[in-house]
Amino acid sequence: MTDRSMLRVLNGERVDPPPVWIMRQAGRYLPEYRQLRAQAKDFMSFCYSPALATEAVLQPLRRFDLDAAILFSDILVIPDALGHKVWFVEGEGPRLEPLLDQATWSIGAADHVVTRLAPVYETVQRIRAALPDQITLIGFAGGPWTVATYMIQGEGGEKDRCRRAAYERPADVDSLLSVLVEATAQHLAAQVAAGADCLQIFESWSEGLPEPLFERVILNPTRALVDRLRALGVTVPVIGFPRGAGALLGRYARETGVNALGVDTQTPAAFARAQAPDGMPLQGNLDPQLLICGGPALEAGARHVIESFRGSPHIFNLGHGITPQTPPEHLAALVNVIKGR
Amino acid sequence: MTDRSMLRVLNGERVDPPPVWIMRQAGRYLPEYRQLRAQAKDFMSFCYSPALATEAVLQPLRRFDLDAAILFSDILVIPDALGHKVWFVEGEGPRLEPLLDQATWSIGAADHVVTRLAPVYETVQRIRAALPDQITLIGFAGGPWTVATYMIQGEGGEKDRCRRAAYERPADVDSLLSVLVEATAQHLAAQVAAGADCLQIFESWSEGLPEPLFERVILNPTRALVDRLRALGVTVPVIGFPRGAGALLGRYARETGVNALGVDTQTPAAFARAQAPDGMPLQGNLDPQLLICGGPALEAGARHVIESFRGSPHIFNLGHGITPQTPPEHLAALVNVIKGR
Repeated sequence: MTDRSMLRVLNGERVDPPPVWIMRQAGRYLPEYRQLRAQAKDFMSFCYSPALATEAVLQPLRRFDLDAAILFSDILVIPDALGHKVWFVEGEGPRLEPLLDQATWSIGAADHVVTRLAPVYETVQRIRAALPDQITLIGFAGGPWTVATYMIQGEGGEKDRCRRAAYERPADVDSLLSVLVEATAQHLAAQVAAGADCLQIFESWSEGLPEPLFERVILNPTRALVDRLRALGVTVPVIGFPRGAGALLGRYARETGVNALGVDTQTPAAFARAQAPDGMPLQGNLDPQLLICGGPALEAGARHVIESFRGSPHIFNLGHGITPQTPPEHLAALVNVIKGR
Repeated sequence: MTDRSMLRVLNGERVDPPPVWIMRQAGRYLPEYRQLRAQAKDFMSFCYSPALATEAVLQPLRRFDLDAAILFSDILVIPDALGHKVWFVEGEGPRLEPLLDQATWSIGAADHVVTRLAPVYETVQRIRAALPDQITLIGFAGGPWTVATYMIQGEGGEKDRCRRAAYERPADVDSLLSVLVEATAQHLAAQVAAGADCLQIFESWSEGLPEPLFERVILNPTRALVDRLRALGVTVPVIGFPRGAGALLGRYARETGVNALGVDTQTPAAFARAQAPDGMPLQGNLDPQLLICGGPALEAGARHVIESFRGSPHIFNLGHGITPQTPPEHLAALVNVIKGR
């Protein structure tokens, strides 16, 4: 029986078996999600519909014994609210008007972000009202650099051009990051005010940066974001997930002020533990491909994750999001392994 | 004046200024290369022409004061020699018949690889004969896992399906890796017999692997490869470059038997030094994007690299290959900064 075990872990307690949630647990691998998704004309409309987004969040909880729910939204609601139009190309991903193509960068101001994102906070309220008290509700946003990369190059994929922009247009990039820090802090604070129990910052594009640039575009803005959150009176735990940070994971854990650390697939638990401040809660890190495989490989992988994180307060998760081709019954089997059933 | 300074560094000496070569220094960013390339009907024919490949190797040395030359070839000559047809789609990259699409994996045997790759060794001989003695000649091959990923999925890109194959078809994948270890050892030994002064193993797809899989597909095959090379009587230094290994770089440095370590863009020199055996020569790691930018950003980046590697025997290089859009004059400027001119 879960009893807000995820929050206990985030407060530094080791809980056995570890609480579990799964990145993208509400999503395309569930047939009921695909059906629901068809009710909105596009993905952003879906994100902005409190009724549809709330239902998406509740779907996986009906199937699986998970310890947390996460808001259904997208990291690109921030640029969208800043007036930087976002759309999704089916089967490919998000598109924005790339700043790179524009001589002068018009970024927008953080002032009206929370007004424009009111439907997101209504979603948070609805989810919290529908959830049993023992299920932790996670609010989230993208890390400033990750969101900036989409705005700069207009889509996902190789981040080479963004790195070059950071070198060649330092003032523009730094000012974009400042606006994103303020907008993201307000957005996260509003989620907490609406009922989120903790927060996660997805810094999905932490990889490939030389250390001086990592300091400038990841460490400094993230520290500014966490500081600003605290200044706004937010006291809930913040999980930082700098995917692909590699050797620089320790600096992220020690220098940004996050309370807990998401660990990606390739980073050993022992490394994260050694690099992070003593006793920092860790979250991760099963290979999502194992969840597609299922069977003995999945079970062995899950047991390896549980064992390897035994020295830290641990929240079980994948090292990256669950993929659309995952059979839902594999997730059910995984939860059984974790919960020792 | 260079005096085989790269080999001195590979033997553990610190040389100041550091010797320098650039990954893909013979390549598309040079107009004379593009002209030369047009003389062959396809990329593999170009690789198999000793006259053209030798000329490609010599081109950058006429322009820049570099301390090493590297054989012009491709990591996919190994599958090609194993009978696994390889072709290149212009502007996209290599293609092979993916093993994933085949019920039974027919891999070929390592026996005839060096016979089939005779033109490559003739190229090595020609380059060595044409090079001044003080320029080090580097032979190379892909790491077994990196080459395997191309064979398994038939192209570059996301390696998710390869990871899944490693989980779901462990016997097939391990046997593929064994064949690649033997073929690669023979291929590298033949390059040394033809005149290569040292070797580099490009393990370009080291990223994203959970530690147990990294052990199985990277550490064990690489150690087997280095052991086999030594058993074949090869005594020259071997540089291992596990790009994207992140937190697992130290295990690669300590457990595979390589003599020197290539460091990718995102990995700080201090981290590599702390993780590697004492005094191990390190090679790297300027961001290739800085070489596109040029100017003060390039100079500051180069100085940061030189300073940060000062505690180790150091070979200056990029953290990844030079890109086609790099202006050649930026490379000339970089060499001047390194050589203190």
